[in-house]
Amino acid sequence: MTWVDSANAALLTDLYELTMAASYFRHDMKERSTFDLFVRRLPENRNFLIACGLEQAFEYLESMRFDAAALTYLRSLEMFDEDFLDYLGGLRFTGDVHAIPEGEAAFDGEPLLRVTAPLSQAQIVESYLLNCVLFQTMIASKAARVALASGERSFVDFSLRRDHGADAALKGARAAYVAGASATSNVLAGKVFGIPVNGTMAHSYVMAFDSEIEAFGAFARDFPDRAVLLIDTFDVEEGARRAAQVATELADEGVRLTGVRIDSGDLVRESRSVRKILDDAGLVDTQIFLSGDLDEHRIAELVDEGAPVDAFGVGTQMGVSGDAPSLGGVYKLVADSAGPRMKLSAGKVTLPGCKQVWRYERNGVIDHDVIALENETMPGGRPILLPVMLNGRRVAEPESLDEIRKRCATTLATLPKSLKSLTQRAEYRVERSERLKDLVERTSAARG
Amino acid sequence: MTWVDSANAALLTDLYELTMAASYFRHDMKERSTFDLFVRRLPENRNFLIACGLEQAFEYLESMRFDAAALTYLRSLEMFDEDFLDYLGGLRFTGDVHAIPEGEAAFDGEPLLRVTAPLSQAQIVESYLLNCVLFQTMIASKAARVALASGERSFVDFSLRRDHGADAALKGARAAYVAGASATSNVLAGKVFGIPVNGTMAHSYVMAFDSEIEAFGAFARDFPDRAVLLIDTFDVEEGARRAAQVATELADEGVRLTGVRIDSGDLVRESRSVRKILDDAGLVDTQIFLSGDLDEHRIAELVDEGAPVDAFGVGTQMGVSGDAPSLGGVYKLVADSAGPRMKLSAGKVTLPGCKQVWRYERNGVIDHDVIALENETMPGGRPILLPVMLNGRRVAEPESLDEIRKRCATTLATLPKSLKSLTQRAEYRVERSERLKDLVERTSAARG
Repeated sequence: MTWVDSANAALLTDLYELTMAASYFRHDMKERSTFDLFVRRLPENRNFLIACGLEQAFEYLESMRFDAAALTYLRSLEMFDEDFLDYLGGLRFTGDVHAIPEGEAAFDGEPLLRVTAPLSQAQIVESYLLNCVLFQTMIASKAARVALASGERSFVDFSLRRDHGADAALKGARAAYVAGASATSNVLAGKVFGIPVNGTMAHSYVMAFDSEIEAFGAFARDFPDRAVLLIDTFDVEEGARRAAQVATELADEGVRLTGVRIDSGDLVRESRSVRKILDDAGLVDTQIFLSGDLDEHRIAELVDEGAPVDAFGVGTQMGVSGDAPSLGGVYKLVADSAGPRMKLSAGKVTLPGCKQVWRYERNGVIDHDVIALENETMPGGRPILLPVMLNGRRVAEPESLDEIRKRCATTLATLPKSLKSLTQRAEYRVERSERLKDLVERTSAARG
Repeated sequence: MTWVDSANAALLTDLYELTMAASYFRHDMKERSTFDLFVRRLPENRNFLIACGLEQAFEYLESMRFDAAALTYLRSLEMFDEDFLDYLGGLRFTGDVHAIPEGEAAFDGEPLLRVTAPLSQAQIVESYLLNCVLFQTMIASKAARVALASGERSFVDFSLRRDHGADAALKGARAAYVAGASATSNVLAGKVFGIPVNGTMAHSYVMAFDSEIEAFGAFARDFPDRAVLLIDTFDVEEGARRAAQVATELADEGVRLTGVRIDSGDLVRESRSVRKILDDAGLVDTQIFLSGDLDEHRIAELVDEGAPVDAFGVGTQMGVSGDAPSLGGVYKLVADSAGPRMKLSAGKVTLPGCKQVWRYERNGVIDHDVIALENETMPGGRPILLPVMLNGRRVAEPESLDEIRKRCATTLATLPKSLKSLTQRAEYRVERSERLKDLVERTSAARG
């Protein structure tokens, strides 16, 4: 079967990376060069990004190999000579990487990743790094909005079935958890990342029994301390009464109904009636779980309208970042042995040189960032582009997902109110240092 | 590193599939049941779908196993008893599957897949089947629009870097090829699926040399019969003149410049000037390749405005189906040993019973479909839901990608003009047979 794995991931690159590398190889161009991976401009409906996906990027860089099968395939293309294929076979990533830590906010034009490596290496890893880092950053950024909307209530990632393939389901669950999801329905993500797993039941379960109440009774008995009953297969209020009846009748058997889920209809009205039905039956601790095409806007509405809800199940819109399903992220050469480099294509200018991003806070709220040259020190700021790999090896142990998740929660707490708006576009101030501005001017003039 | 593969794919399921299965197991509910996987309603900006992703679904069904590591993890959740874990350990998919063949058009409410299997099996595979089939169907449907816009011109999948993770990049390249892409930039997709690979060069290549002309010369010499030079790093027309100069100067060395690529700016105006520069230099066979945030609408414009273009590189918008990044696909119980089943939730009614889809053509153009019960025969129609697996085994060898691609081309040729519109919503007529309507009525009454 056709899976991407450590053995073939090196080939998950664009052909031009390899033809360029072949050309560099032939011309003996192996100087260390620096590339920035950044999002030129945030999507219209995003006021901030949450950096995410670095751990998987590092794993890729550490394990990237062109194995015999890869070389056989490349040979079959009749584009590459044996010397270059030999070189590829021995290729290991030996570069340095700086990155904005996972869970930290990032803004327009700030390097999420800065890669310094021999030219061919830096080039070959471009496609995978973009694919990996942009996707998780996009999902974490979307899920952070869901977290802001949910406030005190929890939300669970239900997106597996609508995610773009298997890898997106796995990494998307991770990114959602980083941004604040309390759990995922995705069992493999639970196993791989240690994320809590959560689930209720499907309509098909209810329908597989002769009656709704029979289905509820069976499930409550089978999972006496964790049953969440789906009550909208036929009629929500009737479903709630049946759930209450089951909980009452089976209380003596040790059943404590954890919750009910409503997946369709007018969720505000229905959750109110259901809350009343449950409370009237003395089930004040039984939670109400809402799902069904939810996103941050719908959740904010439900919260605003006072729906008595304890948790949200959020699927498609979070899992595919429905309102911004791609980030305009790029990976650009900014310096090589000849000095700073700069692309001047219409509307696509890049900032030359090795850079650092400094973040300034005021009264516990982030105020602005300054992109400066690497060797500058910006008083009062905090550098956020940190060294993470040196000569192809990590400089520290992998961070735990809970550390990253905590960093994200801290970041969200320090965002100014304007950036937290789910409906109003607000732009965070990202300045350039005087020396960077000078360099831009000098480089433009030199290459123009 | 964290990859999804055959060994762990069984866990790529929602937790509730397993809790439901555990409950079915305890209640000895193992009757064969039938589920339909279908898209309830096409996205606003899609007039048709192209079925895709079945091959990977079958591979999953054939190889799905809960291995020891999976069982250990599930045990650690303290939700499942040993009897059920034993049962899971021995579980193999033994069901029957009907499907609309890959490359065939499909419409609102038509089962892309119909799964009949012992209840737990059919339930556990839900999440993966949806994830797998919906994604490729979505990309093939988007890419088919790109194919319609491109007409005689070819287009290449450039989406890897913006796809949602590694699996999406691989399967997305496959789906785009099915729908008409002539090649992909994704080398691994080339290896795995035998798709032709294609590529040009990046701006960083040009910038890695001391001058643009030096970069062009080096690349043209290294790939004398396949060089496509990227000419917009500094100034497009200047770039075109330099490309022409290189081609002329190196003609004696056997260099035949395949093409130039423009990735930014006013593509119509620029492609015209570039064409003139190339023609004036006698390079009438040198092709013009356009890229840069293209989608079917932009391509249709470029074609309409008469841009002299030979091929398009299409990335992000095709790879994430930017204007419809998810399909509202569901997987619903429609029949079990007790007969037809039907969900009645507000706005989410399903069609009960085992069904067949009949397609009617008129003068080589598809006219309408009829969804009927399985045992009906609809004169003049062609059944499109075909048996593909029996007792967990395929009934035929896997189809070649080229067969599927050919089927898709045929399908696109038989679409009525209205459905081919890229801007006007048109609805294809999908009727229900009288017997199906009767069954809907009777089932609603019985469960209402």
